[in-house]
Amino acid sequence: MARISSRRNAAPKSRSFVFSFARGLTKLPTNDATTRLNLLGGKSAHLFEMCRLGLNVPPGFTLSTELCAAYYASDKKFPKDLTAQVTTALRVLEKNTGKKFGDAANPLLLSVRSGARVSMPGMMDTVLNLGLNDQTVFGLIKASHNERFAYDCYRRFVQMYSSVVLGIDHHEFEQILDHAKLSANAARDTDLTAAQLRQLVVDYKALVMKKTSREFPQNPNDQLWGAVAAVFDSWHNARAKTYRKIHNIPESWGTAVTVQSMVFGNLGDDCGTGVAFTRNPSTGEKTLYGEYLLNAQGEDVVAGIRTPQPICRDKGHISSQAISDHPLAKHLADVGTRGLSLQEQMPKIFAQLQKTCALLEKHYRDMQDIEFTIERGQLYLLQTRSGKRTASAALRIASALVKEKLLKPSEALLRIDPLSIDQLLHPRLDPNAPRNLLAKGLPASPGAASGVLCFTADEAEDWTHQGKKVILARSETSPEDIHGMHAAKGIITTRGGMTSHAAVVARGMGRPCIVGASSIKIDLAQNTLSTGSKILRPGDWVTIEGSTGEIYDGQIPMVLPELTNDFKIIMQQADKIRHLRVRANADTPLDAKIARDFGAEGIGLCRTEHMFFDHDRIAVMREMILATTKPTRQKALDKLLPLQRGDFMGLFDAMRGLPVTIRLLDPPLHEFLPHGEREIAAVAAASGIPATVLSERVQQLAEANPMLGLRGCRLAIVYPEIYAMQVQAIAQAAIQTKQQTGKSPEVEIMLPLILDESEFSQLRQLCETTIAQICDAARVKFNYRIGSMIELPRAALRAGQLADAGCEFFSFGTNDLTQTTLGLSRDDAGSFLPDYQRAQIFKTDPFVSLDQAGVGELVEIAVTRGRARNPDLKIGICGEHGGDPASIDFFARVGLDYVSCSPYRVPIARLAAAQAQLRLAGAIKKSSQPKAKTAKPKLRLLKKRPTKTKTKPAVKLRRAA
Amino acid sequence: MARISSRRNAAPKSRSFVFSFARGLTKLPTNDATTRLNLLGGKSAHLFEMCRLGLNVPPGFTLSTELCAAYYASDKKFPKDLTAQVTTALRVLEKNTGKKFGDAANPLLLSVRSGARVSMPGMMDTVLNLGLNDQTVFGLIKASHNERFAYDCYRRFVQMYSSVVLGIDHHEFEQILDHAKLSANAARDTDLTAAQLRQLVVDYKALVMKKTSREFPQNPNDQLWGAVAAVFDSWHNARAKTYRKIHNIPESWGTAVTVQSMVFGNLGDDCGTGVAFTRNPSTGEKTLYGEYLLNAQGEDVVAGIRTPQPICRDKGHISSQAISDHPLAKHLADVGTRGLSLQEQMPKIFAQLQKTCALLEKHYRDMQDIEFTIERGQLYLLQTRSGKRTASAALRIASALVKEKLLKPSEALLRIDPLSIDQLLHPRLDPNAPRNLLAKGLPASPGAASGVLCFTADEAEDWTHQGKKVILARSETSPEDIHGMHAAKGIITTRGGMTSHAAVVARGMGRPCIVGASSIKIDLAQNTLSTGSKILRPGDWVTIEGSTGEIYDGQIPMVLPELTNDFKIIMQQADKIRHLRVRANADTPLDAKIARDFGAEGIGLCRTEHMFFDHDRIAVMREMILATTKPTRQKALDKLLPLQRGDFMGLFDAMRGLPVTIRLLDPPLHEFLPHGEREIAAVAAASGIPATVLSERVQQLAEANPMLGLRGCRLAIVYPEIYAMQVQAIAQAAIQTKQQTGKSPEVEIMLPLILDESEFSQLRQLCETTIAQICDAARVKFNYRIGSMIELPRAALRAGQLADAGCEFFSFGTNDLTQTTLGLSRDDAGSFLPDYQRAQIFKTDPFVSLDQAGVGELVEIAVTRGRARNPDLKIGICGEHGGDPASIDFFARVGLDYVSCSPYRVPIARLAAAQAQLRLAGAIKKSSQPKAKTAKPKLRLLKKRPTKTKTKPAVKLRRAA
Repeated sequence: MARISSRRNAAPKSRSFVFSFARGLTKLPTNDATTRLNLLGGKSAHLFEMCRLGLNVPPGFTLSTELCAAYYASDKKFPKDLTAQVTTALRVLEKNTGKKFGDAANPLLLSVRSGARVSMPGMMDTVLNLGLNDQTVFGLIKASHNERFAYDCYRRFVQMYSSVVLGIDHHEFEQILDHAKLSANAARDTDLTAAQLRQLVVDYKALVMKKTSREFPQNPNDQLWGAVAAVFDSWHNARAKTYRKIHNIPESWGTAVTVQSMVFGNLGDDCGTGVAFTRNPSTGEKTLYGEYLLNAQGEDVVAGIRTPQPICRDKGHISSQAISDHPLAKHLADVGTRGLSLQEQMPKIFAQLQKTCALLEKHYRDMQDIEFTIERGQLYLLQTRSGKRTASAALRIASALVKEKLLKPSEALLRIDPLSIDQLLHPRLDPNAPRNLLAKGLPASPGAASGVLCFTADEAEDWTHQGKKVILARSETSPEDIHGMHAAKGIITTRGGMTSHAAVVARGMGRPCIVGASSIKIDLAQNTLSTGSKILRPGDWVTIEGSTGEIYDGQIPMVLPELTNDFKIIMQQADKIRHLRVRANADTPLDAKIARDFGAEGIGLCRTEHMFFDHDRIAVMREMILATTKPTRQKALDKLLPLQRGDFMGLFDAMRGLPVTIRLLDPPLHEFLPHGEREIAAVAAASGIPATVLSERVQQLAEANPMLGLRGCRLAIVYPEIYAMQVQAIAQAAIQTKQQTGKSPEVEIMLPLILDESEFSQLRQLCETTIAQICDAARVKFNYRIGSMIELPRAALRAGQLADAGCEFFSFGTNDLTQTTLGLSRDDAGSFLPDYQRAQIFKTDPFVSLDQAGVGELVEIAVTRGRARNPDLKIGICGEHGGDPASIDFFARVGLDYVSCSPYRVPIARLAAAQAQLRLAGAIKKSSQPKAKTAKPKLRLLKKRPTKTKTKPAVKLRRAA
Repeated sequence: MARISSRRNAAPKSRSFVFSFARGLTKLPTNDATTRLNLLGGKSAHLFEMCRLGLNVPPGFTLSTELCAAYYASDKKFPKDLTAQVTTALRVLEKNTGKKFGDAANPLLLSVRSGARVSMPGMMDTVLNLGLNDQTVFGLIKASHNERFAYDCYRRFVQMYSSVVLGIDHHEFEQILDHAKLSANAARDTDLTAAQLRQLVVDYKALVMKKTSREFPQNPNDQLWGAVAAVFDSWHNARAKTYRKIHNIPESWGTAVTVQSMVFGNLGDDCGTGVAFTRNPSTGEKTLYGEYLLNAQGEDVVAGIRTPQPICRDKGHISSQAISDHPLAKHLADVGTRGLSLQEQMPKIFAQLQKTCALLEKHYRDMQDIEFTIERGQLYLLQTRSGKRTASAALRIASALVKEKLLKPSEALLRIDPLSIDQLLHPRLDPNAPRNLLAKGLPASPGAASGVLCFTADEAEDWTHQGKKVILARSETSPEDIHGMHAAKGIITTRGGMTSHAAVVARGMGRPCIVGASSIKIDLAQNTLSTGSKILRPGDWVTIEGSTGEIYDGQIPMVLPELTNDFKIIMQQADKIRHLRVRANADTPLDAKIARDFGAEGIGLCRTEHMFFDHDRIAVMREMILATTKPTRQKALDKLLPLQRGDFMGLFDAMRGLPVTIRLLDPPLHEFLPHGEREIAAVAAASGIPATVLSERVQQLAEANPMLGLRGCRLAIVYPEIYAMQVQAIAQAAIQTKQQTGKSPEVEIMLPLILDESEFSQLRQLCETTIAQICDAARVKFNYRIGSMIELPRAALRAGQLADAGCEFFSFGTNDLTQTTLGLSRDDAGSFLPDYQRAQIFKTDPFVSLDQAGVGELVEIAVTRGRARNPDLKIGICGEHGGDPASIDFFARVGLDYVSCSPYRVPIARLAAAQAQLRLAGAIKKSSQPKAKTAKPKLRLLKKRPTKTKTKPAVKLRRAA
């Protein structure tokens, strides 16, 4: 734990738990921002800083998180000298406010709030207006000139305190209130008069007496200690515990308690309350943005009877989803723009607020989200924090802060959540369009799409050929559906998780996709899709939003993505910083083009099997699989050869000059055969192959665990002629490309599911011999490398031997490596992963974010062993994790050369790679200091590895012999 | 490579490649036996030793394996000074024999043979009678007094030399011979006269002239160099290469060439030839054993026209399969016992042979297999080597050699092949009974059984209840067949490999089993089993021999196993030596009893799921699985509780005082449900559960890769109540056992498929809480440990954290660890493992013998990391590899505490563990010498780990709280 002894400002002998703050504070409890945050909690730490900046913060004091720890450590008892510390702080506070705690004439009223290191909105308890009793209420009347207001404060205090501190169900108070309103014939709380409210206080206190057999505490000190203990206790209430579990917040952190003097925005027309963003959180525009209510308190806003006004004239309202969790936002947002803006109503305050915002932005070097109250012409600041924002706002703000010299480009870059960029790359629903929600599933692949429903892949393809836009809905998808998925504008499945076949393939294709929409039922017999009461049929329009998992009835207008100049600038900066190259997984020239447009520096994975699912090809593929002799198999392969050659030429053309990694056939052969009697019959009818023959071969090839069966390079150990055909096609395409363009493509031939160096070596020889034959015949050579997927634990362990066996590159298949290392089937884990996440065994889905402790160690082992044998070994990763920022951070740390991800993830990966590099540089700087101890991978490779193929092919490329 | 410079006996400047031998040799080329073997090849090394012992070996000289290497290194050229070395050796040989090479009056004739470090029978070439030509043949006539014999030698020499050295197809000579016989009206070769044979030599030489355009070499020196080169060349012929691949013999070893003077056993009635074993290879009895032919040569025996006689009067003939690959055996074996034995015919020679055998046994300290020739009353020894023997002979000989003080007990132990012991533990077919082979499959589980055929598990069980003996035949088995497999006397499957479900379960049960008998077709619709033309029906008798994979028609009488005193002595010696404990995998009290009788020191794996497949229980199990709410699931579990409690009480009783490791439920739930429409309908009818409900749940639970799905401890993360019930049953059974016997059972609760320390920790808590409740209620405690299977790569990597999380023991599930580390499904690998073994990627089936390079490294990692955190961690292995000697050797080396294997493998494991310990001790001794370098695991733990529970529970056992 961090030592914080330097910041003690109380008696040196006893430990100081109480820290006072007031405008003009000159000395912070500790100078280190992180230590301060940990000690005081987020809210309080920022209050201290605002005080130090000279901003008008209602004064108060903070009971530190260390007190919370001490409180729990000593069985919920406070340290002995705490009373003295609090009394001292109270005296200081009285001096600062000119009011006295418990004074009937001019009472100091307090708010008592929680505040942990990170914000846990609404999870812990708060008590307002503390210090009121039967005497001090008169002081409040005097100060406010408003008896009704004062009694309303008092009865609210009794209710809040009794509920939070005394544990009396707040519904019991509501009942008394309802009864009072009924008696008074008052429709709303505000219809109650001062006298009626005063009576309410009496009734409330009677309830407390009845429930607790004690008087409601009249002594303000008792009130204070009760509230402090209650706030500490609320750290362990059920909802806070759950929240911490979900957000992975350690229990040991504890909460601070902020005791602050109350200010009131509802004492007249020179009063008010509001929230302001220092820039527009939707667009990033540099303009004060927010809303306020005249003569009001936050509570009035929550009551929903008043209409907030904008802070600036003629500026849009807060409507961005990104800020919708702001406690005031939902009330502020859905109102019109009637009435005067703060700018017009209180130009002086507005100017002061503007200055304050500028100051805070300069101090925090970030856009701030501010809460303020105006009490009798005085602007008070109650809170500041970093403001949430949309992705485009994030980019714009980051660019602007760099231009304004508030941030270095590298700092600006670290402020952008790479995942948020996803929003910018896919069409979105027009936020203003009306919509009718049908169902919700998991947001598997982002983007929005409208189309007519259809239930089979063939239909999807046929209808698309007819010019229709189609949404394909299936219970789940299989590789046979790929042509339909490709044809469709979007995909819905009723089963499966974020990493089911549909999800993975759709993300790879950049198709919007919603999976596991379990409230939907697809009845293929009836040819219907039903959601509760609504029944849809093929041809009915639906719209899906892949980033939220929402499925809507009918067509909803779209907003197209626009890559702004800010985006380009940030990406360029990212590219300058990062060492990790970014490639794309792409199987078609179209995918390759999109990837290149998004900045991909090569293809890291071309899955050749996807090329065989086309209608005309799958028939030949089946012919090959059904062949019982080598010659008949070869005959079918001969038919596939020119088609494959064409595929590769297209890719080489699209990626001219950049490396193209081609993975040879990987899936088990049975994936290409029909399944189930109906499908078999259909294929039999179409192909002329007897159903019995098909059925027998299907049965013969069926596997108990296909993931661990006859697939990957095993296919080529059993049927070498399959890979021989693919390598022939590659060589012929490469030669033809070279002849046409004068330049050799950069070909990387990748062998999947390798488990042993001897296996690799034999297949490498097969490839080399095949290439040599083609090259000799054509008298042309081309550049190629032969490498291995590392997707089995054994391959990772044997990495040194693989490098020795002439493996020129590794590409981690982290999907399969996760499946085998964890013994976890991606297709089946959906049934128990939620339980594992609930039980906190998995913090994140290991198929989404790399399991660094397990799979990650194997990655490190393979990198270390491979490079020890061949320092020039090129190492990348082409699993789903290649597009996940946390995983990219890890890959950068262990020194990979590149990641490969789906085309739409390329910008995310570019940014994440740059951030990883920046963090790595920071960590290395830190690790040279003595105290840093980390279980993370050894830090290394701050210098770029010399594999940057853009400028020149630095790594010696092998020429075909 | 080993340096052998010390043994040079030629001119010190040039390298010596030629080594002479003759009776009375005083100095061996090198004193180190291994170096000598490597230098001279096996056959020659033993000839040198026999010469040194003063035995009468025809003199000769050896061209070393180093010459072979030099020959290949210099592109098949001999070193310059080799001619001088050979000439010198020839002169010595002439002196020793009193004959002259190429001398027409008294010619020295030579045999030229190959001889590698290990025997490669029949793989390389041999030339006999070398030195014959048109002149020297007269010398042979003079010496033999037999012109016909001399020309027969000559024509055989021309044929053999031309084929081996000149590369002329030997069929061409056969044609000429056939023609000569036809012309001479001779039925057999021996009917040809001397003149006809002389003409044959002329015709043969004409063929050579025609084929090679050169005369057949008449110069004996040319003949010799040609033959030597040909023998070296034959190291690289196709069949030798294949043999080396199969037997994993390095190409670099090369062969030696032995040039030896010819002796003839066919020069009269004072001549003969024979083969002798120094003890009976079938029984191990100490008696000279073998056969001979009077006035004959080996070639005559091969011609099959003469009847061999026994060496001793009244001793049985060689009939053991163990010696059937002896080149002479098949001819010697199948003849009667007419004529005089050597003992009667030549008592002096017999006595000499007896003395020789005793001398050789004393020298080699092992039973020897000897070839001899008697030439004119002189006994010549042509070969000696360690004799092959049956398992019972091996045990008897080992015991006897110890008693005779020829061997130390530890040496004797190392001489026994642990796998051969298997033969002794299962009933065998009476070797003398007639039999009719129906089909052959893979020998999956040893032992013989006869029974009536049936095709379903239910039928097997029903018929067994009716008192029938049953052989269950299935295309393949699933866990649902277990009750039938248990009821059956033996199991046949038509699909699957050595590690298929049927194989694994049958080995575990000790049931004879033959799998993958692919020539058999089972037609369930017709209710027939067909093999080629024969069609069998349920009720027809068959007999299977699990150690050979043979399936016979009808009943064949059996020979029951008998554990001899030798067996017990050897096992006791093994137990004294070994450090590795041996436990058994046993699921029933019966299994446990067998295991204990075989010497098991505890149960290392009780698979609780096997307890649920009983007819009455599977119904309740299904009720549990079909439950849709926790209360209904609990209701079903409540019914299972007393049954489980009974199971465990039985086990605790059977293993009193020894540890019992209980693995909580492991398989996916769908294994307990019926599959396929027909089975579902049957279960629906029997259980009253609607078929639609069953079918829906079956579909819901179906998994793409069940091996990687919802199974193992994942079941308890999703449904904690299942494990809670099992732990309750364990605790109640333990308490009841303690109350009845006064002693606590040693319970080890094992969690399967653990992948993370947090997962383990949560389930450990579940177990502990459950146990504490039961113990508190009963006011009784019992001894237990909670541990984890290590069967996923991630668990191996997280072993340190698992130990920290309170894991008290590890048990490697090497079956699953192999599946995940290699990405290889045990059930599916059958389709391509043969290709992988053919391609030499796998030297052995990784499910039979542990993949030490891959899986083994993970085992080492887990051991190291686990023990680093908890030095008292108990570590065992309970996969199939626990009964494999090579794997056991590895487990001993990495310092495991115990192996657990099927009951019938326990004696094998005990012996293998002792051998491993002896090798380990030897290796550690060696490793202290500077030259030993090995990539094998670090050697350690020569001292026994203090976990020997037999004497006292040295490891602190935890008491239930």
